[in-house]
Amino acid sequence: MDQQQLIDYTLFLADTNLILAQRNAEWCAHGPILEQDIAITNISLDLIGQSRNFYQHAAILLGNGTTEDSLAYLRAEREFKNLLITELPNNDWAHTVLRQFVYSVYAQLLYTQLMGGNDKQIAAIAEKALKEISYHIKWSSEWVIRLGDGTEESNQRINKAIDNLWPYTGEFFNPAYYETAVKQLDFAGLQDSWTQKVTSVLEEATLSFPQNVFMHSGGKQGVHTENLGYILADLQYLQRAYPGAEW
Amino acid sequence: MDQQQLIDYTLFLADTNLILAQRNAEWCAHGPILEQDIAITNISLDLIGQSRNFYQHAAILLGNGTTEDSLAYLRAEREFKNLLITELPNNDWAHTVLRQFVYSVYAQLLYTQLMGGNDKQIAAIAEKALKEISYHIKWSSEWVIRLGDGTEESNQRINKAIDNLWPYTGEFFNPAYYETAVKQLDFAGLQDSWTQKVTSVLEEATLSFPQNVFMHSGGKQGVHTENLGYILADLQYLQRAYPGAEW
Repeated sequence: MDQQQLIDYTLFLADTNLILAQRNAEWCAHGPILEQDIAITNISLDLIGQSRNFYQHAAILLGNGTTEDSLAYLRAEREFKNLLITELPNNDWAHTVLRQFVYSVYAQLLYTQLMGGNDKQIAAIAEKALKEISYHIKWSSEWVIRLGDGTEESNQRINKAIDNLWPYTGEFFNPAYYETAVKQLDFAGLQDSWTQKVTSVLEEATLSFPQNVFMHSGGKQGVHTENLGYILADLQYLQRAYPGAEW
Repeated sequence: MDQQQLIDYTLFLADTNLILAQRNAEWCAHGPILEQDIAITNISLDLIGQSRNFYQHAAILLGNGTTEDSLAYLRAEREFKNLLITELPNNDWAHTVLRQFVYSVYAQLLYTQLMGGNDKQIAAIAEKALKEISYHIKWSSEWVIRLGDGTEESNQRINKAIDNLWPYTGEFFNPAYYETAVKQLDFAGLQDSWTQKVTSVLEEATLSFPQNVFMHSGGKQGVHTENLGYILADLQYLQRAYPGAEW
C-alpha cells in the first residue's frame, strides 16, 4: 500500500463519518421525542469524533500545514470520498434509523478487520470506535424492529426506506482503487457477515430486502449525487466566508 | 436624503429582488407543469434583472471597486436588507403564488411612487420594471383565484398560505430608517391601495385575510429568519470557495 492510497483510504473513512454526522445533526431539535432527539444527536457527535481522528491522521500523513479543519472545510466536492448513502437526505425517521443500522453493521465488521492492519493509528481509531458502534447498532436495530413490527403506517415507512436505501448498500462491498491495496480487507467475508446480521434483524422486524436491485456507486471515487454540494455549502460556508476563522 | 441612506435604500430594493428570485428559482425543473415551470423561472429571471440594475447603481454610489457581484456574493447575512417574506421557504405552489401576488402588488405601487423621485437612476429602473411587474400580477392573481375557487384541497392550501404569509406583509408598510428619508414615498397611501387591490382579488377567489395579526419585521434592518443564512450559503458558496471566479 503506497502513501497516497493510505491517505485516500483514511480520507474515505473520515469523510464517510463526517457526512453521516452532518445529516444526523439535522435532526437536532427536530427528533420525534426528546430522548430520541438526544440519541441521534449523540450518535452524530460520535461520528464527528471518529471523523476528526481520521482527519488528524490524514493531516499528519499529508504534512505541509494540512489540518483536520482544512480537510473538512476546504476540499471540493470531487475530493470527498464518503459513501453515497451518507449524503442522501434524511427523508423521515424510518430512513434515518435504517441508514444508521445498515451503515453501523457495515462499520462494525469493517473496523474489526481494520484492527488487524499494518497502520497502527487506523487500527487504534477503529478499536476505540467499535465501542460506540455497538451502541449505534443496538439503538438503530431496535428502531428498525419497532417500526417494522409496529403500526401499518410505521411498517409502510420502513418498507419505503428499505426500497429507497437498498440500492446504496452495494457500495459498501465494491472496492475503490485505494481499498484494493488494504491487504487485510476481505470484502466477500464482509458482505456475507453483513447480509447475515441485517437479515436476522429484518426478519425479527417482519421485513425483507429486495433482491437483484441495481447498486449505485461513485461516492468512494468522488462522484456524488447533487446532495453533497448542498451539504458542503452549509458545512463549509463559515470557513469559506471567513478564511482562517477560529473559535 | 444623505448618500448612505440612498445606498441602503438601493440595496434594500436589490436584495429583496435577489432573494425572491433565488427562492422562485428553486422551482426550476420542479414546477407543477412545464408551462408553469417556465413561467415561475421567467419571473425569477425578471427579478434577477431588477436586482442587477439596483446593485449596479449601488456599486457606482459606493465606488472603491465595488461591483454588482461583490454586493450579491460577498456581503454577510446582517448586511442584507431584503423583506422577510422573500426569504421564507417556498413550501407549496399555493405559498409561492400567493407570495408573488402580494409582493408584486406592493412592488407595482412602490415603483410607481419611485418613478417620481429625485434619483433618476432608481426612477428609470422602476419604470422599466413596471412592465414586468404587471405580468407578474396578472399571472399570480390568476393562480390565487384558480386555487381559492378550485377544489377543496386547493382552497385549503391557499388558505393555509394566507395564514402563514400574512404576518409578513406588514413589513411592506413599516418604514426602515433609510426609507423615511425617501420623500416621495407615501406609506399610508401604499397600504390603502395595496389592501384594496389584494382584497378585490381575494374576494374573487372566495378568500379573505386575517385581521389584527402580529406583523413580523426586521429584514429591512438586516435582522433575518434562519432561512437567509442557508440561502446565502447556497448562493455565495461558489464565489466564497473560488474568490474572484468568473465565467
